[in-house]
Amino acid sequence: MATVGNSTNIFWQESPIGRLERQKLLNQKGCVVWITGLSGSGKSTLAFSVNKELYSRGKLSYILDGDNLRHGLNKNLCFSAEDRTENIRRVGEVAKLFADAGLICIASLISPYRKDRDACRAMLPDSNFIEARLLVDARDPKGLYKLARAGKIKGFTGIDDPYEPPLNCEIEIKQKDGVCPTPNAMAGQVVSYLEEEGYLHF
Amino acid sequence: MATVGNSTNIFWQESPIGRLERQKLLNQKGCVVWITGLSGSGKSTLAFSVNKELYSRGKLSYILDGDNLRHGLNKNLCFSAEDRTENIRRVGEVAKLFADAGLICIASLISPYRKDRDACRAMLPDSNFIEARLLVDARDPKGLYKLARAGKIKGFTGIDDPYEPPLNCEIEIKQKDGVCPTPNAMAGQVVSYLEEEGYLHF
Repeated sequence: MATVGNSTNIFWQESPIGRLERQKLLNQKGCVVWITGLSGSGKSTLAFSVNKELYSRGKLSYILDGDNLRHGLNKNLCFSAEDRTENIRRVGEVAKLFADAGLICIASLISPYRKDRDACRAMLPDSNFIEARLLVDARDPKGLYKLARAGKIKGFTGIDDPYEPPLNCEIEIKQKDGVCPTPNAMAGQVVSYLEEEGYLHF
Repeated sequence: MATVGNSTNIFWQESPIGRLERQKLLNQKGCVVWITGLSGSGKSTLAFSVNKELYSRGKLSYILDGDNLRHGLNKNLCFSAEDRTENIRRVGEVAKLFADAGLICIASLISPYRKDRDACRAMLPDSNFIEARLLVDARDPKGLYKLARAGKIKGFTGIDDPYEPPLNCEIEIKQKDGVCPTPNAMAGQVVSYLEEEGYLHF
């Protein structure tokens, strides 16, 4: 009898319609584009632009937004180090399911700790985890950095909590001559990568 | 500033490519088919058959199997009443995401408690939660009922833990003259329902 995690008597079952069949139907390959970067660096903007560009090419993608998921799947988690790890683990597990379903899953989370991102990478087989780091000056439209610097928000990434940059990410989006690329240009960089790596066709 | 669950400063953001656009791309409507029933009643078999039949019609569906998810997303949960509720809540939240992505999401879980299933139903807007109850004699190919009756497995649904049947489910799959329908016949019942309710076209 199998013992799995905290469970006994739990067996794995596989459907005859698998990932390959779904990828064939969609004419694309499932993967996870994991967008990481500081608050205000443009993660959601990039996710939206990639989503839109892929749609215009007839490709099915879906955004898992770290903030939005805190209204649903992760609403019982706080911002302690332990809960942040669990937050990212759950998003990683769900992203894996979406990639298995054949979708291009765009996960958009600050995900400040390297070990948490690497744990998600380890969940995905066959290099289907594409880490895209936004390395641009963070904006502060919501005034959060101001509040964090004043000590009114605690544990804010980049102020009193660290951001650990990826060591070897697939995509790095940078400013040029101090200017942040447009959303379309950023999305173009990601979609070109997906095209070149063969994700946009079966 | 918004306060959400245990989080502050968390804002909801919406992509310009939404559910309608994805449904148009897939030519189907996203929904959740929630298969509930005793262990050994044929939930996985039914899920596989529905998945296969939908695929043969060019429709994209994805199975969330309660047992399989305990290897991943829910591997940190046990079988206490509290953890069973959290297990089902998470599956409900993920099923909701898949329906939002435009897929026909087939969730297959014993889900013995009515309040837990109803909580998942309440997550889905516009009646996109389709409860399919398997009301057939449970088989015991893994010998689990035998072990449970002997007291060697505790908290086993139908033996020393209750199964609360749905009061108003959309689909009920029953035996006829003591004979269980074939997997194809069971799947046909579910797929016909989806067809009639307009889920198989946009």
